[in-house]
Amino acid sequence: MNPIKVGLLGIGTVGSGVFTVLERNQTEIKGRAGRGIEIAVVADRDTERARSIVGERAEVVDDAFAVVKRPDIDIVIELIGGYTVAKDLVMQAIENGKHVVTANKALLAVHGTEIFAAAQKKGVMVAFEAAVAGGIPIIKALREGLTANRIEWVAGIINGTTNFILSEMRDKGLDFDVVLKEAQRLGYAEADPTFDIEGVDAAHKVTLMSAIAFGVDVQFDKAYIEGITKLSSADIRYAEQLGYRIKLLGITKRTDKGVELRVHPTLIPAKRLIANVEGAMNAVVVNGDAVGTTLYYGKGAGSEPTASAVIADLVDVTRMHTSDPANRVPHLAFQPDSMQSHIQILPMGEVVTSYYLRLRVADETGVLARIATVLADGGISIDAIIQREADEVAGEGAEQTDVIILTHDCTEAAMNAAIATMQAAPTVLQPIVRIRKEELN
Amino acid sequence: MNPIKVGLLGIGTVGSGVFTVLERNQTEIKGRAGRGIEIAVVADRDTERARSIVGERAEVVDDAFAVVKRPDIDIVIELIGGYTVAKDLVMQAIENGKHVVTANKALLAVHGTEIFAAAQKKGVMVAFEAAVAGGIPIIKALREGLTANRIEWVAGIINGTTNFILSEMRDKGLDFDVVLKEAQRLGYAEADPTFDIEGVDAAHKVTLMSAIAFGVDVQFDKAYIEGITKLSSADIRYAEQLGYRIKLLGITKRTDKGVELRVHPTLIPAKRLIANVEGAMNAVVVNGDAVGTTLYYGKGAGSEPTASAVIADLVDVTRMHTSDPANRVPHLAFQPDSMQSHIQILPMGEVVTSYYLRLRVADETGVLARIATVLADGGISIDAIIQREADEVAGEGAEQTDVIILTHDCTEAAMNAAIATMQAAPTVLQPIVRIRKEELN
Repeated sequence: MNPIKVGLLGIGTVGSGVFTVLERNQTEIKGRAGRGIEIAVVADRDTERARSIVGERAEVVDDAFAVVKRPDIDIVIELIGGYTVAKDLVMQAIENGKHVVTANKALLAVHGTEIFAAAQKKGVMVAFEAAVAGGIPIIKALREGLTANRIEWVAGIINGTTNFILSEMRDKGLDFDVVLKEAQRLGYAEADPTFDIEGVDAAHKVTLMSAIAFGVDVQFDKAYIEGITKLSSADIRYAEQLGYRIKLLGITKRTDKGVELRVHPTLIPAKRLIANVEGAMNAVVVNGDAVGTTLYYGKGAGSEPTASAVIADLVDVTRMHTSDPANRVPHLAFQPDSMQSHIQILPMGEVVTSYYLRLRVADETGVLARIATVLADGGISIDAIIQREADEVAGEGAEQTDVIILTHDCTEAAMNAAIATMQAAPTVLQPIVRIRKEELN
Repeated sequence: MNPIKVGLLGIGTVGSGVFTVLERNQTEIKGRAGRGIEIAVVADRDTERARSIVGERAEVVDDAFAVVKRPDIDIVIELIGGYTVAKDLVMQAIENGKHVVTANKALLAVHGTEIFAAAQKKGVMVAFEAAVAGGIPIIKALREGLTANRIEWVAGIINGTTNFILSEMRDKGLDFDVVLKEAQRLGYAEADPTFDIEGVDAAHKVTLMSAIAFGVDVQFDKAYIEGITKLSSADIRYAEQLGYRIKLLGITKRTDKGVELRVHPTLIPAKRLIANVEGAMNAVVVNGDAVGTTLYYGKGAGSEPTASAVIADLVDVTRMHTSDPANRVPHLAFQPDSMQSHIQILPMGEVVTSYYLRLRVADETGVLARIATVLADGGISIDAIIQREADEVAGEGAEQTDVIILTHDCTEAAMNAAIATMQAAPTVLQPIVRIRKEELN
């Protein structure tokens, strides 16, 4: 059989990985797919660089829009990124009857509903394993490996940059700004790291996992997003004393009222496997009613790990190419007529979790009692409390101290109200630090 | 569309889990599969127990052979276990054009080649996610999620009984026999635990993973198998002092000469994630040339976790049912005409690894020098050495001591020869303990 023909749009870090791995392992990949997979044409604005990578082994063009029209192309790989040009290209590829493989989490998290509907109508596949957690086959696990389950929750370290920064802050006791600079120097953080450190990238990814896990539309605009820029190394230390690690988690959870969808720094018991995922590595924990807790770990970024996911999608598409569309794996795990559209994404105020609080207070009699009263009035019960000796707190005089509180579960709205009340007290001297906590068992 | 009809053979622990989960989550499962999945008939010798589980919701019969012939049945789930009756049933089901889903690792590890060939000829699927690591979708990850990769090695904690025993031995400093009894009392070990503690069960599973990872036939008869019955808690303690944990691993590894296939207690650096997998949990590490190291973790046994894998296979078969056989996922990951049959399973003597050795020696001058000389003569270099003070060793008089050695890589044959030579020395007072060591990075 002739090889299936692929058009590759964008040959940067991931694109060149795809080209290299597909060539290096072509015998094995063909042996698995049952058919050769050939990148016939590469589109990149920098045709010179593209040519230096692919040589004479593929055509190089500068116009990606010409590629998505070509009748000889069966599959388009979109690795351009962003929302605008990439969206036009993907929509035109679908319109022209091409299958699409993409690593573009931002595009799918924002425009996924429209894109999947167009693909469904046209009978083509849109595959996106590389969009979440790089080389870890987590989309496949959620969409195909755990189909027996009512998925209860998914929680993941799905941004390597922030996990590297948090690991270094904990390991070396350094502050965020210092470690960020080091991460940039080492190539773990981009020159403009905003999307990573503000949690946007993780929110794109958890939005996709949420849709697949629960059969709801991709709804990035409903996600609560909090990054790691305000995390202090003091809180990492206090958390450690209490038996916890702080990780930036993307969390999505089924509740009776709706689905939680959120990204924020999170305390996790140090003994959990995922709490021990260090450096730029990724890991996702999935809890299903039948299987219990499962975990998936690996490299979440990089040229060849991401290429591994892109090529796995190419093989899947090649295998399923000839099957009738109704019998393929559905884009969002559920068949379009079985989407769980009655399930709502919960507003953050209704999300229930437990909390770590740190209050800088005046070291006076009755301060702790007043804090405890505010929490009790809000229906929030205390799990553990540490009051530092005043003289342990560096600088700022001996009349101040830190009070650290772990709470039991309450709603975010209740906690917001309690924090506002406590913050208004003259004995609370600085903005109260609040970090959410998850047991993940 | 009518539901796809399933015949369930054997309704013990896993079978009742399949029935329960399929019923409880039927809406979601149908929404994912695009078609209802109905267990129409259950065959079990104990029809009374079967009836008590399924009630009037499925037909109950005592003759499984009648089920595999029935024209109304599309898929047969084989959960009877063992090699004889189960094999006849699976072969007859295939002959009658039924797809087969099985959790029977023993059957496939021994008779897989014959069974897959028959299925291929008949154009039906044999799915076996539940045969390895229970609910963890590791077969899917290897067969579909990592298709881009030249798989380098796979290493897994794939037997919960032995991992529970080893965890308890380390945690509580207890001996094997004591912990085995506790495991039996708690239901983590069977009354006859031979298959688990002697490593046979793990060998069945790693044989299947080996075939899928490398595209070789299932060759259980070539596996090297060593269980945990001779492990002493002293070695677990010494390993800990050296920064290692001891786990029973199933390992299969590609080398230039062939494929290693082995099960034995193994030292792993304590900082590896898999070294921290405790109790009855399972985990598999896969290393591929593009993706690097990935890990998959979850419950490896139990009614519903295993049912989760069986039902995932049912959904896969339901989705792929109508596609032409050439475009389905191949049984052993590689298409039948692309099996890597030139790759041999290596005899154990040619396997290269590093070692932990413990020698009980007479506390005399020159003993250590003689040991070091034997190793050097065999081309084996020493990585680390601990010589205990004679008086630290309990009992047996102050003239004896333990020497613990970590070696660098050498062949098993070289190590066997060195051990034989050292053992012959009159100053070596007890059988030398040898445990293999893997870095898994």
